[in-house]
Amino acid sequence: MSYKLLKQSKKSKARRGQVKTRRGILETPFFMPIATKASVKSLTFEDLKELEAQIVLSNTYHLMLKPGNKIIKRAGDLHEFMQWDRPILTDSGGFQVFSLSKIRKITEDGVQFRSHIDGSKQFMRPEDSIQIQLDLGSDIIMVLDECVELPAKREYLEKSVDMTTRWAARCKDYFGKSTIRELQGDKAMLFGIVQGGLDKDLRKKSAQGLTAIGFDGYAIGGLSVGESEKDMYEVLDYITDELPKDKPRYLMGVGRPENIINAVKRGVDMFDCVIPTREARHGRLYLWQPAAEKANYDVLANQNRCYRQINIKAEKFAQKFEPINANSRFPVLKKYSKAYLRHLFSVNEPLAIRLATLNNLEFYLNLMKKIRQAI
Amino acid sequence: MSYKLLKQSKKSKARRGQVKTRRGILETPFFMPIATKASVKSLTFEDLKELEAQIVLSNTYHLMLKPGNKIIKRAGDLHEFMQWDRPILTDSGGFQVFSLSKIRKITEDGVQFRSHIDGSKQFMRPEDSIQIQLDLGSDIIMVLDECVELPAKREYLEKSVDMTTRWAARCKDYFGKSTIRELQGDKAMLFGIVQGGLDKDLRKKSAQGLTAIGFDGYAIGGLSVGESEKDMYEVLDYITDELPKDKPRYLMGVGRPENIINAVKRGVDMFDCVIPTREARHGRLYLWQPAAEKANYDVLANQNRCYRQINIKAEKFAQKFEPINANSRFPVLKKYSKAYLRHLFSVNEPLAIRLATLNNLEFYLNLMKKIRQAI
Repeated sequence: MSYKLLKQSKKSKARRGQVKTRRGILETPFFMPIATKASVKSLTFEDLKELEAQIVLSNTYHLMLKPGNKIIKRAGDLHEFMQWDRPILTDSGGFQVFSLSKIRKITEDGVQFRSHIDGSKQFMRPEDSIQIQLDLGSDIIMVLDECVELPAKREYLEKSVDMTTRWAARCKDYFGKSTIRELQGDKAMLFGIVQGGLDKDLRKKSAQGLTAIGFDGYAIGGLSVGESEKDMYEVLDYITDELPKDKPRYLMGVGRPENIINAVKRGVDMFDCVIPTREARHGRLYLWQPAAEKANYDVLANQNRCYRQINIKAEKFAQKFEPINANSRFPVLKKYSKAYLRHLFSVNEPLAIRLATLNNLEFYLNLMKKIRQAI
Repeated sequence: MSYKLLKQSKKSKARRGQVKTRRGILETPFFMPIATKASVKSLTFEDLKELEAQIVLSNTYHLMLKPGNKIIKRAGDLHEFMQWDRPILTDSGGFQVFSLSKIRKITEDGVQFRSHIDGSKQFMRPEDSIQIQLDLGSDIIMVLDECVELPAKREYLEKSVDMTTRWAARCKDYFGKSTIRELQGDKAMLFGIVQGGLDKDLRKKSAQGLTAIGFDGYAIGGLSVGESEKDMYEVLDYITDELPKDKPRYLMGVGRPENIINAVKRGVDMFDCVIPTREARHGRLYLWQPAAEKANYDVLANQNRCYRQINIKAEKFAQKFEPINANSRFPVLKKYSKAYLRHLFSVNEPLAIRLATLNNLEFYLNLMKKIRQAI
């Protein structure tokens, strides 16, 4: 059993539970900080432990090119390489193939593309993606899927969904053969990815196809790629009902705090997003409103205006000598002032990004804790 | 008494002692990490404490322009602004005026220059430099001096030395009037700066002029600006004898480990240099040779080959899975591998600079500890 339900909300589809991985139990709903290139930008493993991050996400596409999955395998695995002993989820590499490589060709066999680093020709079959993720020692492995750019013609979308399902079956097959030598208790998990754009029938077809194959968890892909929030919520409104209750559901690449809250209410358990770390690099800080700081604040019932975002680079912070965040667990965020952080950004000191990243990830992980408490 | 001699080496002019500041006692010889813009690049105050840094140096020129000394004064002082409660030494701003501002005009009154940031016209008299450093709350304040570019005509150099001495007297006068209201025990220290290029007579004249005025310590300026190491050591060979035995001596902007060792042997007590932090940003790491790791290794007697420098970006480290530094006090340097650090540099992850900076500053501060033990 990969998912254990602990509590089902009576007000919404929100659910609290646990995902059992070979590296320990994950309390859901949870958020995964992104360690694209085997590093959550500017943070160490000590920082991530202090943040109480349960799991991080790494990107297969980036790591297969640099330093290369073979080098990481020689280091032991990605855990050993980046000194992270808690679970790691890796994506399939597909999303970056489609978003970073301009020149690519998709066939039934797999996807041909050119490295965005050196232009070298690469070919990735579904089996290759699984093998690379096995090399990395990932605890949650994603199948290779095609993430179709929207809007797309229904005909193309349907063909794509069917191929993605066939690719998922090949992934499962390869994964099963590769992991058969491992002890059952030590096995990684394999997740399928539901596609189908904004087409309800295709989404359901995708979910049914994947469920028939059977995976340890189900991701909802192809959202938060430019469509409206309303469209995204509409898909979520029906898609979680199509997925097994006893498996975790993962909404890929989402999102802003309100997106996460709304997705939790629609039955999603797992999230990842570049927003907290990327916005940190631009000086945009997430901070709780005073009312939401309270221990038993119900973030699901009162999601509106529970937080604010400030642009610390703004002139108005030049003389704000109050702490960056008086309630942070980090002495550096409790002691350094907003004026100091603003100064660090204005003179391009690298410490600026580190402080802002700590702040935003602490906010996001606290958000998930508040969500779990509220369910 | 600003300097207390604890031990005079019998083998050289090396001496171990203490400098008493209003924020505590500094064990000499010591090295000051550089917090140019109120931040030792990529490090927090927690890191600096863990490094056991006794004191840091900040640059008046940069801080007066950004965020501005008035803003720092409103924060309390530079200690409060950068959350550093141990001593801070500030330079006068003169060196950067001469090195960063292309357009500048020196008169008896002071120096006119244009900001390298926005081109705005600025004027700095010796009194202005002291006032800015008082605004910053510096514990060791430097007089404004002219740092002459070498080679220079003797006539110009002599005029410059004489003016620098008159400027020093004005600084002392202004400093005395400004600090008369403060309690004696809370007073900052004021250091004079010996100039005179490579001219022995001018150097001696400068030292005598400053000694006659009387300062809390004496810096040796205008070295490590392009002259040979031999030339630098020649100046040091005679100049420390011209300075009072009961005051600390500070060699500005020096240097590589062997330069520091050779200067200590010539009677110098204080050092600062961008080398450890700047080289860290380029992936050049300082590491001890195994023999020198031992607790009672005499670094003054065996300075040759006591350390090595590696370029962690080199291809040969791609698969070196050994720790960055197995003997470091930092878990991150003991656990992360050289291969991982090389990877971080190769993909421009900001963590790379932080790890390399911690490594190099730990090396430099250990070097000073080894020097103090060896005397």
